[in-house]
Amino acid sequence: MLGGVSDDRVPLHLEDLRPGQRWETGAHTLTAEEVVAYAADFDPQPFHLDDAAARGSLFGALAASGWHTAGITMRLQVREGPPIAGGLIGAGARIDWPRPTYPGDTLRAVCEIVEVRPSRSRPDRGLVTMLTTTLNQRDEVVQTLTATIVVPRAGAAPAE
Amino acid sequence: MLGGVSDDRVPLHLEDLRPGQRWETGAHTLTAEEVVAYAADFDPQPFHLDDAAARGSLFGALAASGWHTAGITMRLQVREGPPIAGGLIGAGARIDWPRPTYPGDTLRAVCEIVEVRPSRSRPDRGLVTMLTTTLNQRDEVVQTLTATIVVPRAGAAPAE
Repeated sequence: MLGGVSDDRVPLHLEDLRPGQRWETGAHTLTAEEVVAYAADFDPQPFHLDDAAARGSLFGALAASGWHTAGITMRLQVREGPPIAGGLIGAGARIDWPRPTYPGDTLRAVCEIVEVRPSRSRPDRGLVTMLTTTLNQRDEVVQTLTATIVVPRAGAAPAE
Repeated sequence: MLGGVSDDRVPLHLEDLRPGQRWETGAHTLTAEEVVAYAADFDPQPFHLDDAAARGSLFGALAASGWHTAGITMRLQVREGPPIAGGLIGAGARIDWPRPTYPGDTLRAVCEIVEVRPSRSRPDRGLVTMLTTTLNQRDEVVQTLTATIVVPRAGAAPAE
């Protein structure tokens, strides 16, 4: 779903982006195997690795690492969002996890352009603030991400 | 390396944490295979997947996804930081990537307790602000993470 963003797979430059543009990705349903595999690699805590151990934790049941939710959200944006010229490259972000993600949850992301401003030091590019909200199958918010991404101007894009 | 934190593997509760406590993790050297494997799963953009494609990008060479740097930092903290009662559970964070991580880089994390405050609504726990700086082998900062984590009080910890 795209709102105010033409998506004919031509990469979007700074001039193409405006506050209020919105799009929504398709969904991904998370398995327990994925939760445990991510945790084993990057967040090896008992409540991300084992359902029995998770029962006595703050989560109450096997739950995904917040960084796993962040990774899934990134993949949904990269694969299903409109293409940004130069790629989706973040300089930094505010990230919040208001509730956990559990195996069986179906996640999707809603992205909105919040601010577009030219770079003061680099006239060939600008900084775009994007709010990405990750929702589960009950439309509950599991993550909000306000990221600043670097986007080239048309005619000034680096060679790709 | 621990500073002001006793680390006899007894989990630390809210009362054990004070602003200024610091510790440093061991190091992890990132391979190109790891960079590409993470990207294939969670951030499938050309500059995270292929060195030739990355040459024309903002990164100039194959570079790790920022979310991969975040995951490695989390693993270093979980495996090598002092144990926090209830686990290292983040409610949210500010994350910045001042420079990219490249294959061959050796990363380590320096963690510092910035603020400790009791929860207003839940007397059995508190919120701790932790600054984690991820450095490469040249002591350049590749990530800063200011996270709010939920830590139980002693005697009020959930069953584990």
